[in-house]
Amino acid sequence: MTAGRFISLEGGEGVGKSTQARALADALARRGIECEVTREPGGSAGAEAIRGLLMAGAVDRWSPHAEALLFAAARSDHIDRLIHPAVEAGRWVICDRFLDSTRAYQGVAGGIDDGAILALHAFGSRGLLPDRTLVLTLPDEEAAARASARDGAANDRFGLRDENFHRAVNAAFRGFAEAEPDRFRLIDATGSKQDVTDRLVAAVADWLP
Amino acid sequence: MTAGRFISLEGGEGVGKSTQARALADALARRGIECEVTREPGGSAGAEAIRGLLMAGAVDRWSPHAEALLFAAARSDHIDRLIHPAVEAGRWVICDRFLDSTRAYQGVAGGIDDGAILALHAFGSRGLLPDRTLVLTLPDEEAAARASARDGAANDRFGLRDENFHRAVNAAFRGFAEAEPDRFRLIDATGSKQDVTDRLVAAVADWLP
Repeated sequence: MTAGRFISLEGGEGVGKSTQARALADALARRGIECEVTREPGGSAGAEAIRGLLMAGAVDRWSPHAEALLFAAARSDHIDRLIHPAVEAGRWVICDRFLDSTRAYQGVAGGIDDGAILALHAFGSRGLLPDRTLVLTLPDEEAAARASARDGAANDRFGLRDENFHRAVNAAFRGFAEAEPDRFRLIDATGSKQDVTDRLVAAVADWLP
Repeated sequence: MTAGRFISLEGGEGVGKSTQARALADALARRGIECEVTREPGGSAGAEAIRGLLMAGAVDRWSPHAEALLFAAARSDHIDRLIHPAVEAGRWVICDRFLDSTRAYQGVAGGIDDGAILALHAFGSRGLLPDRTLVLTLPDEEAAARASARDGAANDRFGLRDENFHRAVNAAFRGFAEAEPDRFRLIDATGSKQDVTDRLVAAVADWLP
């Protein structure tokens, strides 16, 4: 049995996180590694109920502070009920968005202090961080084109914000990666789906048996 | 026009808070004071949606930490969208439960550090406190008898907990009142409904025109 690992996939809208989370799990499964693919907000029953409140409705439905508290509550439940037990049982967890999305969206782009977001995470989730965070990156123009080409289902409260907002989010992820190089890897998300999956597998190759 | 005031009504299960919130508002209305009666969790559209998550389901549906974050999120929305605008407009707000219920239920009885709950409140709601907090008190035996006599609708996740839990909650409210005598008033909740309302009006008589 391998040791459990917790990997988060991050990046802006339309960069391919959900698709690649499943593709990475499939690629790891072929190497004998049992993966649990999950997402935020959501992933556990309680957190999915909170997701319903966060993703639907008008862009200004929640203040940035209320929103940050709801994300922290959902994350607390998700970690307690799914992520922590899975990693403890030796599985790999691949999570489509995690804490760094809150830091980018509610923090850098939404004006909430990063220290305050980390304090909420310390309170709700004992500060648990992913073992590795893989940030899918695209040039701003390509990211904007992909986001605007997405179907209606993806146009939730966050996808609907303007281009400057999404540019700020992308810059935020790059900044986090620079500040914490041990945890983060920037992954080029251009090219074919298989190209990107290969890059993701390479980014965790040091953990493979 | 009187200055706006923010009054919270606190106390354990079955002590008469909801009934007395309305009765106090009626008594104040007869004295020409426009009151808004509201409740927690809830009171605004967003907070009522969060209330739905908090009050339904199994007692252990949420961990104490996730629960405290949800209460803080609901309170943030309630203050931003209802309490603060009403008080700014010169109305009196009477709120059935507020921060001190979180401190008593999730804090003293649920094991969450009081400083952490106050930090969440500072984050979500800039630490706004009621101008006065009126705690309805009953002897423990009478409180227990009233709680167990309540109909099914009141037996939500909190009402369903055991007698020790409710005794700890009542002791917590008394402790808060001792620590902050300027904000708190203990109100004897025995006797007739009118007796109790008269005591509540007397506890805010210094603000009456």
